[in-house]
Amino acid sequence: MGGMTETPHPLYAKHADTLDRALTAIAERTYWSAYPESPSPRVYGETAAAEGEAAFRAYLGTVFPLGQPAPGGLGITESSPFGVDLDVTYPHAGADDLLAAAAAGMSAWRDAGVRTRLGVCLEILDRLHKHIFELANAVQFTTGQAFVMAFQAGGAHALDRALEALAYSYAEMTRHPGTADWEKPAGKGDPLRMTKTFHVVPRGVALVIGCNTFPTWNSYPGLFASLATGNPVIVKPHPRAVLPLAITVRYAREVLAEAGFDPNLVQLAPERPDERLASTLATRPEVRIVDFTGSTEYGDWLEANARQAVVYTEKAGVNTVVVDSTDDFAGMCRNLAFSLTLYSGQMCTTPQNVLIPRGGIDSDQGHKSFDDVAAGIAGAVGKLTADPARAVELTGAIVNDGVLERLSAAREVGEVVLDSQELKHPAHAGAVVRTPLVLKLTTADADVYGREWFGPISFLVATESTQDSLAVFRRVVGERGALTASVYSTDPAVLAEVEKATLDVGVHLSCNLTGGVFVNQSAAFSDFHASGANPAANASLTDSAYVASRFRIVQSRRHSG
Amino acid sequence: MGGMTETPHPLYAKHADTLDRALTAIAERTYWSAYPESPSPRVYGETAAAEGEAAFRAYLGTVFPLGQPAPGGLGITESSPFGVDLDVTYPHAGADDLLAAAAAGMSAWRDAGVRTRLGVCLEILDRLHKHIFELANAVQFTTGQAFVMAFQAGGAHALDRALEALAYSYAEMTRHPGTADWEKPAGKGDPLRMTKTFHVVPRGVALVIGCNTFPTWNSYPGLFASLATGNPVIVKPHPRAVLPLAITVRYAREVLAEAGFDPNLVQLAPERPDERLASTLATRPEVRIVDFTGSTEYGDWLEANARQAVVYTEKAGVNTVVVDSTDDFAGMCRNLAFSLTLYSGQMCTTPQNVLIPRGGIDSDQGHKSFDDVAAGIAGAVGKLTADPARAVELTGAIVNDGVLERLSAAREVGEVVLDSQELKHPAHAGAVVRTPLVLKLTTADADVYGREWFGPISFLVATESTQDSLAVFRRVVGERGALTASVYSTDPAVLAEVEKATLDVGVHLSCNLTGGVFVNQSAAFSDFHASGANPAANASLTDSAYVASRFRIVQSRRHSG
Repeated sequence: MGGMTETPHPLYAKHADTLDRALTAIAERTYWSAYPESPSPRVYGETAAAEGEAAFRAYLGTVFPLGQPAPGGLGITESSPFGVDLDVTYPHAGADDLLAAAAAGMSAWRDAGVRTRLGVCLEILDRLHKHIFELANAVQFTTGQAFVMAFQAGGAHALDRALEALAYSYAEMTRHPGTADWEKPAGKGDPLRMTKTFHVVPRGVALVIGCNTFPTWNSYPGLFASLATGNPVIVKPHPRAVLPLAITVRYAREVLAEAGFDPNLVQLAPERPDERLASTLATRPEVRIVDFTGSTEYGDWLEANARQAVVYTEKAGVNTVVVDSTDDFAGMCRNLAFSLTLYSGQMCTTPQNVLIPRGGIDSDQGHKSFDDVAAGIAGAVGKLTADPARAVELTGAIVNDGVLERLSAAREVGEVVLDSQELKHPAHAGAVVRTPLVLKLTTADADVYGREWFGPISFLVATESTQDSLAVFRRVVGERGALTASVYSTDPAVLAEVEKATLDVGVHLSCNLTGGVFVNQSAAFSDFHASGANPAANASLTDSAYVASRFRIVQSRRHSG
Repeated sequence: MGGMTETPHPLYAKHADTLDRALTAIAERTYWSAYPESPSPRVYGETAAAEGEAAFRAYLGTVFPLGQPAPGGLGITESSPFGVDLDVTYPHAGADDLLAAAAAGMSAWRDAGVRTRLGVCLEILDRLHKHIFELANAVQFTTGQAFVMAFQAGGAHALDRALEALAYSYAEMTRHPGTADWEKPAGKGDPLRMTKTFHVVPRGVALVIGCNTFPTWNSYPGLFASLATGNPVIVKPHPRAVLPLAITVRYAREVLAEAGFDPNLVQLAPERPDERLASTLATRPEVRIVDFTGSTEYGDWLEANARQAVVYTEKAGVNTVVVDSTDDFAGMCRNLAFSLTLYSGQMCTTPQNVLIPRGGIDSDQGHKSFDDVAAGIAGAVGKLTADPARAVELTGAIVNDGVLERLSAAREVGEVVLDSQELKHPAHAGAVVRTPLVLKLTTADADVYGREWFGPISFLVATESTQDSLAVFRRVVGERGALTASVYSTDPAVLAEVEKATLDVGVHLSCNLTGGVFVNQSAAFSDFHASGANPAANASLTDSAYVASRFRIVQSRRHSG
């Protein structure tokens, strides 16, 4: 539509098979991935890892080669959780310059049509994939993720999620034809005949506001959905995680220019301390789309103030586990322990509240008291983190001082079941590494467990019963939202009841995870991330509702025949 | 999805062919209609018209039989533009009662699944269609539309638009499967296998706020899209056009109850004078969707204050015609005159500003000066309205005193080309009938033509040139919005330039209409109504973006195999 009639850029043909496969994947939602998640040399070649690391290191201490107009320099805002000196300077522009530059190429990008835009966007993903090790290093050293996680979540999975958003964008833009012949019978006279043309038009400038912990994964769906639907994109990175998005913008600009478009269709907008550039941009009339991941406070501010734009937010939530019974006690403890330990609980999907009946639960190892369950989970965490060299490959590093402060405050709010340990990183002496803190609470401590404690902090809450757990679940998730929920039960009636509760409060559920799937991980093309049906997010990060409002249809009609 | 696995209600099978045909229509956007627009006895039978009128008259002077809980009665707020005594009393309930009743049936409606909900909604349309003459009379005598228009726009076309919204709803809800098997290779080990279930969940209670002039046509898409996607709907009619929506709600409730659902899934919420029930409901946390047609002032208020909801608004705009040249001068004048005269210009799609170069235009009748063009249009309007008995079947009656006041004020703001006439309605002595007022302005009068004058008021604006017309068009529509635009030109370059301008300001365009298609009419299943791309509306009334955010997907997953 508005782009189906003109000849597409050759990049469309180059990537048409990938797009087709992605369209099938979003319709089937079974397993599929376009970008291999293993950083193994067998997949990416013997030299890829070293070349990527070298490319990353080459940025350090330099002015980032972005090719954007930069009326003013920028102070350095990043500091690595691994203690590595990043010292990268980024070109800085103000809102007026950014918006003027964004607007310049918009008409040509719109008029290029759907297939050309898709071809260019797919080429950008391809280019980023060629630089995946460079990207992974940048994600690792700005977010504190361990390398494999940075490679997967920050590289391969982020690219998969971007491709997923492109597939939805293409599907929505092409669900109507580019032109239609309309012929209405008119009694005995000649029929009325008209030719109608349906154009896809962008909303305007799109603003993507990145987060500290997942700068690429959380930004890519909005970035690529907006770009594919015709909108210029301004990427405002989190001040502590600029480099991964700078690299992203660099290659996006490179591809745009190669394809004959204005590279300023994608711009980086690094923010000076106290500049409030995000707020300035978000409330400008030219900005018609805002994507944000971060705090509830700022997300709510954007929703309230960026009134001229559609605003997609992912905010804080209280992820909850209901433990009722299990036929694999060891597997349950291992699985939960892994989820609590991974990236030191610094995922928006990490469970915080584990609701356990105070009278204990039935299991394949017989009845387990509340304290048995607590000890089982604590023991499994202890095992995962016993060897610092292996532990740090799970925990990564603490992303910022806010997490450390919260961790220290949390120690005072309940009975410590497992204390957080400070670990030495064998490879990075400056890395700040902490293992999970696990506390015991009762349902009376609602002022504690009723809000998010972002970081390696979990509460085992003693409830009266599974029914009581469900009441707590409904109340806390209903009020505060959640991105994930999980349940352990051998009773189909309990599983059904929890599933019904998740429909009422609008949160995705995982049941009886005891193996290699974890509640804090979602698979592109199959799992939806966030639901938009509870206060933790006002949209799902990849579905048709997420893309359908990023463009509009404008028609023209005239008589024919 | 969440409804594809269970057995649907038999109403689904009854209407499946209609749904299939509608799904084809929205994908092709060629001509199709499910509900015949001719009120002829050859189509609807010899007795249908009389029976429908009798059913309408039976409501007059009574308490409307809605079957809703009514803690308090209601004063009468309707008065017919045709001077007919309506005197219908409606059951009244406050926000608390309405919202509690709405919530009661929501889970069962959600859990019934997509196909059952569609079957029930299609049966409601079928039931309304059986009562189309009753509905047409109610529309006529509350809005002032002439009968045929009330039958078409208020009956057949409204039902077509409702069906179109149902088709989009079904398409969006079923684009993902109800369940999926996910199997991820895991190196040398067994693959990870999960079964995933994807549920469609409603957002919450939907509020539809009706307008005075098109109570059914403008309300049906939102009403049926919300209901089909699982949301209970509260219909707040305009105080002066309650009856058409009361009839709608009556039959919706009847069908819901027959199908075994809570009839309170659709409720009428008539508003007492000064009660501000719409504002109270729109800002309640339970209300998660608001559809509104009406003033820019109140639409903007809703967008600013109903923050917990997605808000779809259709507001005021300045519809514009660019006259550059024509190869059918008489046809152009006739076509424009019809558009200005139909329902006395009280359509949100009626042209207001006709931009004509002050040096005149080229035509098949040679060069026409500005005054020639003005005289041509005025003459054509005069011809259409010369015979009062025929004129009133086009003009209908003036919907309310606000239009009369505006008409009186307008006479002072420019040079009168054609004055508005007061006509006697041969059948309804109390009808308030006015023919179009046409004024001449220059581009200097931007404070006049730069805003909406709703009613039979049009401005012929003398511009420097077609280029100047385009500048005025871009400025006014860019600032104030428009639902329609049209152009007359024999020059392909001008047509292309105007089309480009409509993409930039986001308004639908009609080119060189000289026959039986009029700029103020849009055809269901083919034309989009409103674009959502300019200030006149924040959404198109029927497209996928209009339905995709009315529901959410909530998934559950568990290991399998």
